[in-house]
Amino acid sequence: MYTTETRIRIHYALTDQMGIVYHGHYAQFYEIGRTEAIRQLGFTYKDIEAMGIIMPVVDIHSRFLRPAKYDDLITVKTTLREFPKDHKIVFHSEICNENEQLLNAGHVTLYFMQAAGMKRTKIPEELSEKLQKYFNG
Amino acid sequence: MYTTETRIRIHYALTDQMGIVYHGHYAQFYEIGRTEAIRQLGFTYKDIEAMGIIMPVVDIHSRFLRPAKYDDLITVKTTLREFPKDHKIVFHSEICNENEQLLNAGHVTLYFMQAAGMKRTKIPEELSEKLQKYFNG
Amino acid sequence: MYTTETRIRIHYALTDQMGIVYHGHYAQFYEIGRTEAIRQLGFTYKDIEAMGIIMPVVDIHSRFLRPAKYDDLITVKTTLREFPKDHKIVFHSEICNENEQLLNAGHVTLYFMQAAGMKRTKIPEELSEKLQKYFNG
Amino acid sequence: MYTTETRIRIHYALTDQMGIVYHGHYAQFYEIGRTEAIRQLGFTYKDIEAMGIIMPVVDIHSRFLRPAKYDDLITVKTTLREFPKDHKIVFHSEICNENEQLLNAGHVTLYFMQAAGMKRTKIPEELSEKLQKYFNG
Repeated sequence: MYTTETRIRIHYALTDQMGIVYHGHYAQFYEIGRTEAIRQLGFTYKDIEAMGIIMPVVDIHSRFLRPAKYDDLITVKTTLREFPKDHKIVFHSEICNENEQLLNAGHVTLYFMQAAGMKRTKIPEELSEKLQKYFNG
Repeated sequence: MYTTETRIRIHYALTDQMGIVYHGHYAQFYEIGRTEAIRQLGFTYKDIEAMGIIMPVVDIHSRFLRPAKYDDLITVKTTLREFPKDHKIVFHSEICNENEQLLNAGHVTLYFMQAAGMKRTKIPEELSEKLQKYFNG
Repeated sequence: MYTTETRIRIHYALTDQMGIVYHGHYAQFYEIGRTEAIRQLGFTYKDIEAMGIIMPVVDIHSRFLRPAKYDDLITVKTTLREFPKDHKIVFHSEICNENEQLLNAGHVTLYFMQAAGMKRTKIPEELSEKLQKYFNG
Repeated sequence: MYTTETRIRIHYALTDQMGIVYHGHYAQFYEIGRTEAIRQLGFTYKDIEAMGIIMPVVDIHSRFLRPAKYDDLITVKTTLREFPKDHKIVFHSEICNENEQLLNAGHVTLYFMQAAGMKRTKIPEELSEKLQKYFNG
């Protein structure tokens, strides 16, 4: 298992007229969490694209338990529960507020694809190596 | 069953550097589809809020089959498969491009809640009446 | 002078917790107005990019007179007051609500640039021809 | 004069198919800069709203010199050049990348308004006090 945490401050643009964060913005919070999870491996998603591999999202599921509000400092906990198999990687996300109340939980499935030709491919070797120690015995 | 269709033109702000529509924006397409589905009943979501009822999203699931691209004129097909029960309503969405290729499919669950006090409530009578003919015999 | 009008329905994602449209979204309304202005010439901005020319925004000025609100059907009036000179084009935008109250006025300057090499270039010949009749005598 | 700096990491949602940050998102960067400028005074914009005062944007001007790109860590430098007069406050923003290249410069004018009744009002006493030391002799 590999887990990291990232903090995000809610700015005005993310709120809606219900006085809460618009539900559609949580996909961005998950994205920021994933990106920082990869960065903390000593790698970046930008590096992955520079290698000619892109990671489009193919599935997203999100449950909204409590609303995030303006100026909240939320924590996005991002977890890889399993080592990526074949061309697929699944990130689980949990979002809490400063009182450690769970606001939202979800998961996102992405594919590894070659940007040229748009063929599915497997996890880049460099990323695989960085991740292995979190999943071995 | 109650089904409506809405068209949306993809503008530049919705694209990302993969050259496709950013996955996080599909929640907005679903929202636009739901809103127009309610409007075509001779009612608006704005009316519902004016009655003191809000409809927060509590669950969203989305599958991405093919990318939408800049300037695409997509069709959002919004369907209520079942008459809303208790405080819950589920909208199914299918998004196609101009070649009638299915790009995305998903569903969104919302609650009916009283804005004052944030208690769950049942579907407003007016909306219920408008919908009934689509689900009876 | 060349003027066109486009309608946009305000959806929930565009509102903020002041109960109005977030100011940062007006740049998108201007963009949609410009795009439709070009389309009504029998041309698309997508065509321009397909010719290897991109049009980055280099300057934007926006004045907010009255707020747009949820479910408003706004009209974006887009005007080219002068024929584009050199590598520069300026679009003026006025946004009104259904009561024809002016909500917002602004203008956006864009450059014509060759995508390959990122050099400034002049207006594409095809676009120039389509526009000329609106500015001659 | 009162100046603060804030850092923002560019995530994927902010890019467009030109491979750069969509111009419409800079208004959010300015907003984040303003908010942090107020927070560093030992105060928050949230506090201001809790006092019944809102600060709608009435004018924004933005010049785009160089593009921000995916994963850039930009710095937003936010400056109050003058002490707010009457009901008006003007924030100047400069955005640089990690190589200290200026990407964007702009300024935003906001009004102080009473949320109840939407009348213009003057700067809240608490904010005025915190700011005074930066503008006195």
